Amino acid sequence: MNRQIILASRPNGFPAEENFKMIERPERKPEHDEVLCQTIYLSLDPYMRGRMNDVKSYAEPVKVGGVMTAGAVSQVIESRSSLFQPGDFVECRSGWQERPTLEAKNLRKLYPDQAPISTAIGVLGMPGITAYVGMVNIADPRPGETLVVGAASGAVGATVGQIGKIFGCHVVGIAGTDEKCSYVTETCNFDECINYNDDDFQSQLATVCSKGVDIYWENVGGKTFDATFPLLNDFARMPVCGLISTYNKVGLFDNPDRLPVLFRSVLTKRLLLRGFIVFDFEDQKQEALQKLSVWVKDSKIIYKENFIDGLENAPGAFLGLFRGTNFGKLIIRVSPDPSL
Amino acid sequence: MNRQIILASRPNGFPAEENFKMIERPERKPEHDEVLCQTIYLSLDPYMRGRMNDVKSYAEPVKVGGVMTAGAVSQVIESRSSLFQPGDFVECRSGWQERPTLEAKNLRKLYPDQAPISTAIGVLGMPGITAYVGMVNIADPRPGETLVVGAASGAVGATVGQIGKIFGCHVVGIAGTDEKCSYVTETCNFDECINYNDDDFQSQLATVCSKGVDIYWENVGGKTFDATFPLLNDFARMPVCGLISTYNKVGLFDNPDRLPVLFRSVLTKRLLLRGFIVFDFEDQKQEALQKLSVWVKDSKIIYKENFIDGLENAPGAFLGLFRGTNFGKLIIRVSPDPSL
Repeated sequence: MNRQIILASRPNGFPAEENFKMIERPERKPEHDEVLCQTIYLSLDPYMRGRMNDVKSYAEPVKVGGVMTAGAVSQVIESRSSLFQPGDFVECRSGWQERPTLEAKNLRKLYPDQAPISTAIGVLGMPGITAYVGMVNIADPRPGETLVVGAASGAVGATVGQIGKIFGCHVVGIAGTDEKCSYVTETCNFDECINYNDDDFQSQLATVCSKGVDIYWENVGGKTFDATFPLLNDFARMPVCGLISTYNKVGLFDNPDRLPVLFRSVLTKRLLLRGFIVFDFEDQKQEALQKLSVWVKDSKIIYKENFIDGLENAPGAFLGLFRGTNFGKLIIRVSPDPSL
Repeated sequence: MNRQIILASRPNGFPAEENFKMIERPERKPEHDEVLCQTIYLSLDPYMRGRMNDVKSYAEPVKVGGVMTAGAVSQVIESRSSLFQPGDFVECRSGWQERPTLEAKNLRKLYPDQAPISTAIGVLGMPGITAYVGMVNIADPRPGETLVVGAASGAVGATVGQIGKIFGCHVVGIAGTDEKCSYVTETCNFDECINYNDDDFQSQLATVCSKGVDIYWENVGGKTFDATFPLLNDFARMPVCGLISTYNKVGLFDNPDRLPVLFRSVLTKRLLLRGFIVFDFEDQKQEALQKLSVWVKDSKIIYKENFIDGLENAPGAFLGLFRGTNFGKLIIRVSPDPSL
């Protein structure tokens, strides 16, 4: 049987476990050019919250009753494709399920001797590539510049900051616990990391950004944006990669409209704001993976994985992303990793 | 004597004639490498409103008691520089005054046989160069794309739209009177122009932008922004060049905060917003002037000048910029043009 987690109902605001439902469907025998897979690792990421709304953004929403979307690392069980043998490991976008049948042409083959296969949904997968293409194409980091990145211990944020260090930036992280801040500075080599739950968060941030901010990597919004925006220097760049603090917001914001203030700063400071999605830079994927692999091998980029066992625990783990309880790249271990 | 208009007091909100004062000072004899000039044409532009506030933006504010800032076209009366002879015409940044003494090295020599000298503060000066560098460096227009530009009959807007036509765009202007709209479509060759004072402005705009908007040239803000922003396509570009509708606003905007909505669109539509000032692209000035000159000679770019006689009328004319009563590039004719 193939266990799946489907979208049971659309959340209004903060999602709850009731919005998800575990069902069982029979496995489907692969047809020509298809493979049957066993999911090993499932990636949980903040963007999935957007897919739960009935709003078209850059991707179609998940239908009510549809399998939740996700990237995964899987093993081929049965193949009717010349591209894969049973036993091969692959990265795929199969969603929250255990035994999917997939088109072979959409799969990326993984080699356990090159890197742990779990990294294919982390530092050597979508989050890592996101960090790379956003830094290279939008942030344009130069030696001596100050880079601020929120969600700094997260899968994208930690990689962004370490790429900033490789490019010679003064790197300041923002995170939600002292433990995360310590990890970011001690293990990931950021110059500073500020806890946004501290009362004097804003003044701490201003102190460690004494020369202003040249790059603000936006993956949070809210408080993190509010504290960083006034510190932006002339010609600062702001890759807009995510807005996790706002994903569960419903209705209007009741503070006065700050749009005119934003635009005045954009004009007078000549700021660059640019939204992007990793798939916009598909042609740079191989370059990104090559660079990231070398940096990981050379320990210039450190990554942290947070494994949670069992598909049934995916909804609860996913909700933790928005409560800040997750620490590191969040991965559901659906079945044991035979490559280890 | 040298008549000057100085900033008498800082406006709070909409400026008034009382914020300006005409004074007379003796002319100053030029020293080594200086020239004494007679102002012929004075450029009045919306950005000057920002200089009246006691707020540092990209330029220092005008001091209370200081001469109002402006670009001008002048004739050299007396020269102690080897670069200029008496009788030469120059473009300079001498401000609202009649007989300034200026450093020769900051002046651009003008040749009346090449183009009317008044264009050196218009289509072949700061407004034209602004349009060119913003289009080439930020808007990145491609054939078949839809470009929307506000203040479409203004010095910058009209040039932006005509450059859009040269690049093969579907060009939609926005202006404040039917007369301006007719000028923009009939003389400047825009495909459409919508009057923002029409009750059904927003739906008219949506109709003529049936394929959405790929480039929104922001020089207005307010209503123009509000109507255009929802029409932006994925990957739309938004050069932020001015915000004339907001320059006189005081205090907070009392509608709910739209910043989170803006950022959500920036992310999901992968928008590019970038503020700029013409001086950021100083190295492209010659290229811009060369291109613009050819386009003007070939009648691919038409320009309109609104001459008002007498330095004493500068304050009133300037205020008209914010009331929408001006039509075309606003120029104060301080003294007769001897080149005509």
